[in-house]
Amino acid sequence: MNNFEFFNPVKIIFGNGQIAKLNDELKGFQTIMVTYGSGSIKRNGVYEKVMAQLHDKMVIEFGGIEPNPKYETLIKAVEVGRERGVEFILAVGGGSVIDGTKFIAAAIPFHDGEPWNIVSKGIKVEESIPMGTVLTLPATGSEMNSGAVISRAATQEKYAFGSPVLFPKFSILDPTFTYSLPSNQVANGVVDAFAHILEQYLTYPTNSPIQDRFSESILKTLIDVGPKTIAQSDDYDLRANFMWSCTMALNGLISTGVPTDWATHMIGHELTAFFGLDHGVTLAIIYPALLSEMAEDKRAKLMQYGSRVWGLADNELVPANIIRITEDFFRSLGIKTRLSEHGIGFNNVKPIVERFASRGWRLGENRNIASDMVERILKRASEPYS
Amino acid sequence: MNNFEFFNPVKIIFGNGQIAKLNDELKGFQTIMVTYGSGSIKRNGVYEKVMAQLHDKMVIEFGGIEPNPKYETLIKAVEVGRERGVEFILAVGGGSVIDGTKFIAAAIPFHDGEPWNIVSKGIKVEESIPMGTVLTLPATGSEMNSGAVISRAATQEKYAFGSPVLFPKFSILDPTFTYSLPSNQVANGVVDAFAHILEQYLTYPTNSPIQDRFSESILKTLIDVGPKTIAQSDDYDLRANFMWSCTMALNGLISTGVPTDWATHMIGHELTAFFGLDHGVTLAIIYPALLSEMAEDKRAKLMQYGSRVWGLADNELVPANIIRITEDFFRSLGIKTRLSEHGIGFNNVKPIVERFASRGWRLGENRNIASDMVERILKRASEPYS
Repeated sequence: MNNFEFFNPVKIIFGNGQIAKLNDELKGFQTIMVTYGSGSIKRNGVYEKVMAQLHDKMVIEFGGIEPNPKYETLIKAVEVGRERGVEFILAVGGGSVIDGTKFIAAAIPFHDGEPWNIVSKGIKVEESIPMGTVLTLPATGSEMNSGAVISRAATQEKYAFGSPVLFPKFSILDPTFTYSLPSNQVANGVVDAFAHILEQYLTYPTNSPIQDRFSESILKTLIDVGPKTIAQSDDYDLRANFMWSCTMALNGLISTGVPTDWATHMIGHELTAFFGLDHGVTLAIIYPALLSEMAEDKRAKLMQYGSRVWGLADNELVPANIIRITEDFFRSLGIKTRLSEHGIGFNNVKPIVERFASRGWRLGENRNIASDMVERILKRASEPYS
Repeated sequence: MNNFEFFNPVKIIFGNGQIAKLNDELKGFQTIMVTYGSGSIKRNGVYEKVMAQLHDKMVIEFGGIEPNPKYETLIKAVEVGRERGVEFILAVGGGSVIDGTKFIAAAIPFHDGEPWNIVSKGIKVEESIPMGTVLTLPATGSEMNSGAVISRAATQEKYAFGSPVLFPKFSILDPTFTYSLPSNQVANGVVDAFAHILEQYLTYPTNSPIQDRFSESILKTLIDVGPKTIAQSDDYDLRANFMWSCTMALNGLISTGVPTDWATHMIGHELTAFFGLDHGVTLAIIYPALLSEMAEDKRAKLMQYGSRVWGLADNELVPANIIRITEDFFRSLGIKTRLSEHGIGFNNVKPIVERFASRGWRLGENRNIASDMVERILKRASEPYS
């Protein structure tokens, strides 16, 4: 096991009706900015439930945070927040709203040049406006971590950033708030959480059996409840277990003491930045291709994954077979796993390869994925599924 | 899944050499009380490593906290702490030192009568002196939770108490600090952690697959590494995995959304209070007897435990068999599992039954273990092993 630090002070308030505790959690804060997305919370009743809890507060609404939240949008909330002296920001939504809110929370007190520097230059965030979340879309785990991913439309860039001061103070997770989600968003959430676990698990062994088994626990649960909760949106236990899976998949716990990969996410972010593909979709495209290219590096863990997670017998434990089963799981959720199926040819992705080449980044747990390997992965991802 | 809240802000600093970070964690505190036990830390080098990190502090030492820490001892530290204006308390030791330190931390600012009231009357602790830990004996999980168990010699009482203000600010877990532990203490630690998991897992199903699988993950790891780390005290990975197992076994994570039992602990505490048996030993005595008496209530989870944790085939999934395997696991660690083996007869434990009868407590996940059932459990535990 590698040395590690683990710290996660987010208070999780989980279950049906727990929104009733929101007012208590906001004690001491008067001027609250409420952030949300396209307005689905106004159609499914969540907005009313949140506002009822804010009856004694000065509320400033900031809606319209888009999927893959954009700097251009968020900077407007930063201006409003500064002008109005916002004391607390409540994100009501999924990972995009929460990530965007983390940026707003960090940028309001940031006065060291343009706030985009936080994201693009990786400037350490030392101070932020306190925030909390009401989760409506299980997927990213942002409700229980201190990271975020922000895009800039003007430059087609998408970057991750984070800071220990950006943990939400609390997150309210009510599975019933997810009943009205479109099934494709739920499917994307299953893939996102699944990929988060693989990024922290499918590397090389470090004799960390608790972490391995925890990862396998969440993977097995997603395989079991994922397809069912897509099909049956109002089954409470299915939604609850899906929701808790997504949160546990990226809260720092399963990465303690083990190497992490994250190459699939880095490449996937570029597919979103260039072509606007949903985040979960980019992971479903890149992961099978990356595993195929990196199968030798990942051989030991790939075998463990095939055996323990998919229950494969010894004679079925062949990398290509294990990878195909993973890709077919994504496809069984209704997600296309090849670039060609999204109308993107190999020629279209060359700017991504060039971008990695010019950055000189080396990705993956062994830092051996340079732009030539990115090219091979994208080439493979652009081949037709057969 | 049941509704739940989860909050655990303890910063875990894990690994070989991490004591080097202690000084940084104490930034801003000047007057530090260092608590420890019988002085083993002075023989194994841990004391020097800790003190080297406190070179710029005013240090007040309070050693001599005994196993099953006693109010009579701790109250002396409370007096010293008040007199000297202690700002931070650093517990260097195992669960007893950490539990005792939590009491000291709560009692110093407590002025609502005798501090024993905190424990005996369950008075809510709203304020405490901040504390941190350097763990030397993996077992209780106290390094990452907000609870403690305190005894009073004069009245032969042993009670649990807790408060969210009693989470350690940080805990430093260096597996090498455990190399010099006597093997029986390690064996007790394995049983203690194992029992902690069973208390939160072996109840009745609530469709909480993540929590179940996490519990099974830690149980399987303890079954694997427990006997090995007892036999081979200086294998780093074995000790690291044992240490992390103990911490994860009682930090609130696996009890999210599920019922909990704790009857074995409640009865075991009485065996310690009356006869001075080691905590881990009391659990190894009571658990098999309790499971035998409660096998019908726990049938579904007992079967799941036998199948998933012990890998039993369908025809082996008989409660008596599963319970025997559990008892034999404890015995394989060198721990005697019957009262008679400790020279205690059924007649000796009658005061315990009377105490439960006079309290009128009803224990267990179904609150159906009254004093008559406690008597049956103790009767069974007093029968010879054969």
